Amino acid sequence: MRMYDLIYKKKYGEKLSKEEIDFIVQGYTKGDIPDYQMSAFLMAVCLKGMDMEETTNLTLSMRDSGETLDLSKIHGIKVDKHSTGGVGDKTSLCLSAMVAACGVPVAKMSGRGLGHTGGTIDKLESIKGFSTSISGEQFFENVNRIKMAIMGQTADLAPADKKIYALRDVTATVDCIPLIASSIMSKKLASGADAIVLDVKMGSGAFMKTLDDAIALADTMVKIGTMAGKHTSAVITNMDQPLGLAVGNSLEVIEAINLLKGQGPKDLLEDCMALGCLMLIGGGVAKDHDDAEKMLLQTIEDGSALKKFAEFVEAQGGSLEFIYDTDKFEKAQYVEPVLSPVSGYVSHIQTDEIGMCSLILGGGRETKDSVIDLSVGLILNKKLGDKVEKGEPLAYIHSNDQAKTKAAIERFLNAYTISDNFTDEVKTIYAKVTSSGIIKF
Amino acid sequence: MRMYDLIYKKKYGEKLSKEEIDFIVQGYTKGDIPDYQMSAFLMAVCLKGMDMEETTNLTLSMRDSGETLDLSKIHGIKVDKHSTGGVGDKTSLCLSAMVAACGVPVAKMSGRGLGHTGGTIDKLESIKGFSTSISGEQFFENVNRIKMAIMGQTADLAPADKKIYALRDVTATVDCIPLIASSIMSKKLASGADAIVLDVKMGSGAFMKTLDDAIALADTMVKIGTMAGKHTSAVITNMDQPLGLAVGNSLEVIEAINLLKGQGPKDLLEDCMALGCLMLIGGGVAKDHDDAEKMLLQTIEDGSALKKFAEFVEAQGGSLEFIYDTDKFEKAQYVEPVLSPVSGYVSHIQTDEIGMCSLILGGGRETKDSVIDLSVGLILNKKLGDKVEKGEPLAYIHSNDQAKTKAAIERFLNAYTISDNFTDEVKTIYAKVTSSGIIKF
Repeated sequence: MRMYDLIYKKKYGEKLSKEEIDFIVQGYTKGDIPDYQMSAFLMAVCLKGMDMEETTNLTLSMRDSGETLDLSKIHGIKVDKHSTGGVGDKTSLCLSAMVAACGVPVAKMSGRGLGHTGGTIDKLESIKGFSTSISGEQFFENVNRIKMAIMGQTADLAPADKKIYALRDVTATVDCIPLIASSIMSKKLASGADAIVLDVKMGSGAFMKTLDDAIALADTMVKIGTMAGKHTSAVITNMDQPLGLAVGNSLEVIEAINLLKGQGPKDLLEDCMALGCLMLIGGGVAKDHDDAEKMLLQTIEDGSALKKFAEFVEAQGGSLEFIYDTDKFEKAQYVEPVLSPVSGYVSHIQTDEIGMCSLILGGGRETKDSVIDLSVGLILNKKLGDKVEKGEPLAYIHSNDQAKTKAAIERFLNAYTISDNFTDEVKTIYAKVTSSGIIKF
Repeated sequence: MRMYDLIYKKKYGEKLSKEEIDFIVQGYTKGDIPDYQMSAFLMAVCLKGMDMEETTNLTLSMRDSGETLDLSKIHGIKVDKHSTGGVGDKTSLCLSAMVAACGVPVAKMSGRGLGHTGGTIDKLESIKGFSTSISGEQFFENVNRIKMAIMGQTADLAPADKKIYALRDVTATVDCIPLIASSIMSKKLASGADAIVLDVKMGSGAFMKTLDDAIALADTMVKIGTMAGKHTSAVITNMDQPLGLAVGNSLEVIEAINLLKGQGPKDLLEDCMALGCLMLIGGGVAKDHDDAEKMLLQTIEDGSALKKFAEFVEAQGGSLEFIYDTDKFEKAQYVEPVLSPVSGYVSHIQTDEIGMCSLILGGGRETKDSVIDLSVGLILNKKLGDKVEKGEPLAYIHSNDQAKTKAAIERFLNAYTISDNFTDEVKTIYAKVTSSGIIKF
């Protein structure tokens, strides 16, 4: 088999066999296939596509390129949740506690943030003492005892994905559904969960800009997971604005804790409910959506989710004071309002740019080696459809550097569009995709 | 400007500006743009195309990536001829002499052969003493004195093309009209001629398999040349079978000399006439096609073309005996017929495979460093449409190794299809493309 011939086949839109896809993935991972051939191949895939069978074979080959985790030491059905990435997405924090409080084991491997989206590990480290550097034994024990643990990813899961993703990132071959789906699903399948719930973001802060594209991606991933024998489902959620009001590491943790106290923003709760229902059903503890919804709301009303979160934080060395009194979190030195220059309605938010505001304040990583400031970020005061008067705050910038504040305010104002009217309906959840089909809301 | 953004633009079929194309070509040539980005870009060009303006800008940028020759020391209008490459194509040898005999200066830089097509320099070296390693001064003096000289390419013409071609060759991005046209024309424009005549081959031994594709390539190249201010024209010629009967270095030189003696195969003469007419018109020595045709035929009838070839060979150190007595050429040790296994008509020839027969006999280069045997090759006895009886020779293999003869015979038989009937018309010239339009024959 020659890579040249396989590039040629895909260039002319022909279907590749399982053996051919394995040859490419394993050959590239081992270094037998050079970058310049792989990038030509990836561009051909972007422009000529891959069918479901090819995409599944690609995913399985990437999964099998490295270690796969064995979670059999954890009792019960392990459900993994994955978000395609968004601004202000602190769902993992509060949702995990709600689901764990319902008895579904949450064993999460998480990463750090890069670019305009934040990482769960960074956020949790704003709780004094908290550490994700725990041993595998400790991790399994914590999950079995309190149903919830989060550790930094240590295993070499799907190295093919890591190498292919780095190449896609510099060759403009990122935005391609078969490549996105195989990248996400190869890691999820390697990480050993029994069921997978996917949060596919759609809008100005996400890769997927249209509902059709988002559904196509979700559907592809659900089919891959199902073919690989895992109960897999997805929701399509709104990323035309940040999720909730807080953007920034400690600010998001505080918002997540507030949600567990029954004081969370509506869209964040809706997102948690939609994902949580799929997780309870996937985890086999709820029989249907209504049942799951009742159980999840109960964890907030009776305080069991907050208690679960506290147990989890304590088990990983975090200070419990932070949970019960969020004033303990380290504060940024300056809080400046972003004042609206005109009156009207918020009609568009360039969401990735809001993420960039937090990044330039020092709250995100520009490169893998950046040191981040956990206290900075912003709190939105107005979201899509909100009426705003000239001079009224659109948001509050939390910063430790006045020059950075100025730059963030400028960037923020460019990201917000205020119009004379805005009558669109703002949904949080657009659709649900399961192996039985697609339901649009 | 970032290469990433330019790859992205082309991926979505957007048009690139002159500045953007320059950024890519010069950046890649200098090594600022890595292979893996360039190959992704080239694949996007293959699948999304380039319009005439982009293709011309690409060509000019490649031309300007290195030296350009100054032929102003040569008197008169310099006409360069280029063939896209075919099997048995010895046109350069005889045509140059015919055209030079008509007073058009022929100043040719030539290359060596690679793969299944032969190179003019290799062929000429089968004449004892002949050398293309002459100085620039000698080259100019010879052209001015006898109107004809051929030298090996020494200048660093269009280095961008060299580097891009090497990458295309391993990333399945060769067969793409804008890339083929810019590759050929960048070198032609850098080599300093005033007028350019192109022989675009079409058929089983050529890149272009259909008349539409061949015309599209020819038309693209004629437009590029015209936009660059050079009188440019092209003919589309048949490569569904080798040109003439001889394939192999010295065998082709002998056939070319025979043509100048009035004993050449009909298709080779037709090819020379079609190209020669365009060269005489481009060179300003003939007023129209009829005029040019008469002048060219005259050079054969009165022996002036043969005399011109002899002058040229002598001026570059070659033995004149070889011209007047072609029995002087070194002969291969064995001549074996390829016998037809059945009776019928020759209905298809896989022409590139006939070139491969010569290569495996030792007459061509598999890699740049191969040493070649100038005496080997084959002489066809039957061509397309010819009636053949079982046991009759289809061709004669000239070889210095019986094992290679056997392999060549086997390969030859696989390349020939003998059918019960064949009534298609076999044309030598399919079309002529000039700046005034396309004429199909």
